[in-house]
Amino acid sequence: VLSVDAQVEGVHFDRGFLSLQQLGARAMASALSDLAAMGAEPRAALVSLICPPALNDDELYAIMDGVGQAQARYGCVVIGGNLARGVQLSITTTVIGAAIGRALTRSGAHAGDGLYVTGTLGSAALGLELLKRGQADRWQEHVERWRTPIARVEAGLLAARAGTHAAIDVSDGLLQDLQHVCEASSVGCVVDLPRLPRPRDAAIERELGVDLERLALSGGEDYELLVAAPEPPSGDFTRIGTFSAEIGIRLRDGSGVPRPAEASGFDHFGV
Amino acid sequence: VLSVDAQVEGVHFDRGFLSLQQLGARAMASALSDLAAMGAEPRAALVSLICPPALNDDELYAIMDGVGQAQARYGCVVIGGNLARGVQLSITTTVIGAAIGRALTRSGAHAGDGLYVTGTLGSAALGLELLKRGQADRWQEHVERWRTPIARVEAGLLAARAGTHAAIDVSDGLLQDLQHVCEASSVGCVVDLPRLPRPRDAAIERELGVDLERLALSGGEDYELLVAAPEPPSGDFTRIGTFSAEIGIRLRDGSGVPRPAEASGFDHFGV
Repeated sequence: VLSVDAQVEGVHFDRGFLSLQQLGARAMASALSDLAAMGAEPRAALVSLICPPALNDDELYAIMDGVGQAQARYGCVVIGGNLARGVQLSITTTVIGAAIGRALTRSGAHAGDGLYVTGTLGSAALGLELLKRGQADRWQEHVERWRTPIARVEAGLLAARAGTHAAIDVSDGLLQDLQHVCEASSVGCVVDLPRLPRPRDAAIERELGVDLERLALSGGEDYELLVAAPEPPSGDFTRIGTFSAEIGIRLRDGSGVPRPAEASGFDHFGV
Repeated sequence: VLSVDAQVEGVHFDRGFLSLQQLGARAMASALSDLAAMGAEPRAALVSLICPPALNDDELYAIMDGVGQAQARYGCVVIGGNLARGVQLSITTTVIGAAIGRALTRSGAHAGDGLYVTGTLGSAALGLELLKRGQADRWQEHVERWRTPIARVEAGLLAARAGTHAAIDVSDGLLQDLQHVCEASSVGCVVDLPRLPRPRDAAIERELGVDLERLALSGGEDYELLVAAPEPPSGDFTRIGTFSAEIGIRLRDGSGVPRPAEASGFDHFGV
């Protein structure tokens, strides 16, 4: 299986917000996250850089050093690439993987399947918000979640072996990526809000005026996995809802009646 | 085998110089030319676009229409891609091919091997020069050579079957790409200038003040193949020189003594 992902300066990252090593590693992790959601083992990568003339050799090596770190971490060998000039720094990463049996896709979720996610949601978006507000020194764990995302390769392999019906990585935000699975599978879903694995910190909400539940639903770039499965997959998965025959995503607050969700995309930086 | 290539607006193309369909087809041909030089059959491609917000849907479809034309021409199925926003239009194309036996590389040329190239050299660079000077209506064949390059897939397969020692595609200019082969193979080469397959048109040289021999040596983007082979490969190959144990590229004018070549890269548009 193959996947391609692009990270564009000013859209997906700001050079003031992370080191060039982190940028290189982040580009690889972001691309490998797609493979993870297919239940595939990373094998090889191609890295295509568009570099502004002002980027010097040391800076270029720093990016490739970060790529190399990811290469070692994920056992994914960079077998080629391309270097072109341009006004805007971007890294386009193509990754090649080997699926364990049939590759997982967005389609295949059944009514009655559980909705499971790995890790926590909304932390990366919170980290980006902290960076934008110049508050990176406080609550560093969230900033690191944004700077150095982890592709959930092991979780994807476990999910594939466990007979998962459908999977996607949460890059655009839970509601938006869940919507992709629901549309591809012709099902709906009820999400139990109290079950969302997310930061719970009243001090952050009060001081920054952010809604952490909203970030968990709509904040992007967590690169966690979302799967539809009849049985709980082993590993770091939390059940947060149930797929339904009724179309549409509904949110259930405690024991109340589910209400329709309004999906709102995650805009990174805008252009 | 895999390869990746990027086409960046303002660096590799100018939207005033070709249609968006031509741009899409050109991006595929440029990437497939790398596969051709490996002696590989195209199988699949991934297309990653960075699009400025001003690019509308019709324009995007026009690019993908051109990609589709190349897909049909080369039997290379687009199996995925990515769409990101950015300030500068670019297309990064990853192509996957199947090598016939061992893939050809830049290394492996032996002293005594013949230097062969397909087609003609310098025509694409001349076409670009005509476009820059607003003279596209005259000498259209050269303009078309720049706008719609052809990946020499068949020639690459023939060369691989014929036991070619090394190969590369001429994208940066003959001298520069030959230099890559010489360095990777630890050999040198003598190029016989009168044998260069190139446009010979005194009217063009006089009216435009261009040196067509210089364009054949240093003009890029012809996407012809250059191979080192002990015997002439079948197909559209012209012998233009001989690899040598002596390091360095030398140019021989008629029967004269070879003089060292000064490689000068092809700068596309600059940034």
